[in-house]
Amino acid sequence: MHYREVTTDRQFLARLESGADWREEIEALADEAGIDAGWFVGIGAVSDAEVWYYDQADGEYHAVELDEPLEVAACLGNVSLLPDPAGSTGGATYESESGDRFAHTHAVLSRRSGGTLAGHLNAGTVFVGEIYMTAFERPLEREYDPALDLELWL
Amino acid sequence: MHYREVTTDRQFLARLESGADWREEIEALADEAGIDAGWFVGIGAVSDAEVWYYDQADGEYHAVELDEPLEVAACLGNVSLLPDPAGSTGGATYESESGDRFAHTHAVLSRRSGGTLAGHLNAGTVFVGEIYMTAFERPLEREYDPALDLELWL
Amino acid sequence: MHYREVTTDRQFLARLESGADWREEIEALADEAGIDAGWFVGIGAVSDAEVWYYDQADGEYHAVELDEPLEVAACLGNVSLLPDPAGSTGGATYESESGDRFAHTHAVLSRRSGGTLAGHLNAGTVFVGEIYMTAFERPLEREYDPALDLELWL
Repeated sequence: MHYREVTTDRQFLARLESGADWREEIEALADEAGIDAGWFVGIGAVSDAEVWYYDQADGEYHAVELDEPLEVAACLGNVSLLPDPAGSTGGATYESESGDRFAHTHAVLSRRSGGTLAGHLNAGTVFVGEIYMTAFERPLEREYDPALDLELWL
Repeated sequence: MHYREVTTDRQFLARLESGADWREEIEALADEAGIDAGWFVGIGAVSDAEVWYYDQADGEYHAVELDEPLEVAACLGNVSLLPDPAGSTGGATYESESGDRFAHTHAVLSRRSGGTLAGHLNAGTVFVGEIYMTAFERPLEREYDPALDLELWL
Repeated sequence: MHYREVTTDRQFLARLESGADWREEIEALADEAGIDAGWFVGIGAVSDAEVWYYDQADGEYHAVELDEPLEVAACLGNVSLLPDPAGSTGGATYESESGDRFAHTHAVLSRRSGGTLAGHLNAGTVFVGEIYMTAFERPLEREYDPALDLELWL
């Protein structure tokens, strides 16, 4: 059990831009508002999505591409800072964003039938998106954990 | 990216009344406590449900009727004010509630098998419902967006 | 409609210990930090899970055992105190924990295919878990409700 007491700095409501990327829009909010630690919840709809499943045995993410309009029935995640690649000794999972604010985003998506798909939301084209973000005072920094081959916080 | 900083006014825990409608109970909480802007999360169970999927091509909601007891594995949503129909120029999606507090409610429901169904939760008969609502100081008003044919906030 | 206004006491971010039980880790956070009322949201992954479905007709939980690695696409729940068994007149649903802090935990889990399973999360072995907990000032106590055969709060 690893935990820390946190204090709310600021809170935001956001509407993600139609046609933009769901996760990038959340990271744009973090960048514009200077959020180095936060939690968000959201609902909405996307016109496509890419969800990831982490293979705990081989340490790799596996993508599922969903090329169809979907409801975002539930979206939960957090904002943190990824480790600086220059100081990292391990294989950064999210290399393209090292050193930047990262929105770790999970989502549950649903079809016209009501059937659902879910996972780590790497990408998705926003149709509509409504987000509530709580920003904390102290930055949250991820560090590479070689045992799990993931960047963890705390 | 459209966002606004918000300030928490008050917070509430609620237990939805067994036999009542899930969304109407949340709206009743908003009415009784005078919440014109808020976010809520919840869990529980319903004895039936109606979930909607928004067809992004034809601009219509399509309902899936679920006439069976289901767990509410996750419920997320927000409270806002719908536009006054007298001042609206477009086709209000939620006409029956125009001018009123509206609980935009998404949910993930599950069966005995663990299988899931999800979407925009229009209705559902509460078996048990536990809700955490954060109310914001400044009212949140939706406006009709003709391009998306939806009432959006911000 | 039963509700109460609550005040945030403290807030926490936690990383659940890999290999431990998901719900017990949340209850360990509640015990260590002295949280008698709280709401949490979380995401992560488990290497197995047991989800429950409450049969509203026979008043019994039915377990689904999932012996496979799964993403935790969404996890929502609350912390409260279970009724003291000595003072209880009915059949406590969660007998082994009576009088203790209880994390009522629902979760949506997903497979490599993106397919999902969900319900009341009784147990699950943490692979990684990221939790945001809000603790409230006033304790939240459950009482046995004979009509629903469940411990309810408020």
